[in-house]
Amino acid sequence: MFEGKKNMGAKTFLFPTPIVLCGTYGKNGRANLAALAWAGICCSEPPAVQISVRPSRYTHEAILDKREFTVCVPSSSQSKIADFCGLVSGRDVDKLASAGLTAMKGQFTDAPVVAEFPVCMECKLIGSLKLGSHDLFVGEVAAAWIDGKYLDEKGNADLRKLSPIAYAPMTGGAEYFTVGESAGKSFSIGRELMGKK
Amino acid sequence: MFEGKKNMGAKTFLFPTPIVLCGTYGKNGRANLAALAWAGICCSEPPAVQISVRPSRYTHEAILDKREFTVCVPSSSQSKIADFCGLVSGRDVDKLASAGLTAMKGQFTDAPVVAEFPVCMECKLIGSLKLGSHDLFVGEVAAAWIDGKYLDEKGNADLRKLSPIAYAPMTGGAEYFTVGESAGKSFSIGRELMGKK
Repeated sequence: MFEGKKNMGAKTFLFPTPIVLCGTYGKNGRANLAALAWAGICCSEPPAVQISVRPSRYTHEAILDKREFTVCVPSSSQSKIADFCGLVSGRDVDKLASAGLTAMKGQFTDAPVVAEFPVCMECKLIGSLKLGSHDLFVGEVAAAWIDGKYLDEKGNADLRKLSPIAYAPMTGGAEYFTVGESAGKSFSIGRELMGKK
Repeated sequence: MFEGKKNMGAKTFLFPTPIVLCGTYGKNGRANLAALAWAGICCSEPPAVQISVRPSRYTHEAILDKREFTVCVPSSSQSKIADFCGLVSGRDVDKLASAGLTAMKGQFTDAPVVAEFPVCMECKLIGSLKLGSHDLFVGEVAAAWIDGKYLDEKGNADLRKLSPIAYAPMTGGAEYFTVGESAGKSFSIGRELMGKK
């Protein structure tokens, strides 16, 4: 039955992941951004997202210190900036200055909202799990800021305009991608299979 | 400074999410699949993924019962099947039969590997968090099965061939998307910004 299947081993073959930038104020008082792909939504009520961070990272201590952080969603046109934020440490480099980004203090948290990203959520730490190489942090969303130009005529977020990054870790060449064509409406296209068998 | 920004409220504006299918053997002994978008990678060592499931769902009790489950990644050509799996409950419907899918008992877990999906990870429950509407489950990956036709010539997973689903919850029309064009190589395109102030 497993014919044609190959066991790639104990690997996190989950595709695609988002790319987010976790904003904190570090010990030096400077706004900082960590690029994270180990991230996702994890609860609807309260609305919450999970990000997973290595304990060695500068952002890890900042999250535990303030217990507040932002999770920003960059546009695919900003993948160079996102990549840069994953290559250097906020201990050594003022990433926002290097990337030409503007930090504004959050209205609900002591964490930086970055003006240039389409979306930025202000989050409060409500849970965590020590897993091994990474600690999983759960952030309850206090506010989701979006730049008005990414809204559609009904006032909803427009994914086409936003053009977030889809990431493909664990593949041949780890790569950032845009989001492509529609593959159907959710809670809709599957109805065709209902009532069968 | 917040000029042009709109606070959409306490909402999980994280884009894109993956769409995965969580495979379990239910109380009735039948293989079942739950469609989940609240999911992501959360640890590298041990390799682990998180899925978040409402306590009312049939899959929730199956995960707690067996403490083993699969996380399958469908292709965007299978979005109708993924959607269907989110519309009905395994309590009432044999989803695999309805969707023409084949379950094979895992080689590392008591959970179903589904033949027709490009990727299927066998996972063991290693942690959980009660969050509210959802419980977050962490699964350590014991094996990542991939169909040989989704490998590139070097034997790595090929995202282009796989064509996973990128989901856009919380947007105007919640929609499934394909993964689009390259937006650059990771740990690479950001180097241009290094060395700058």
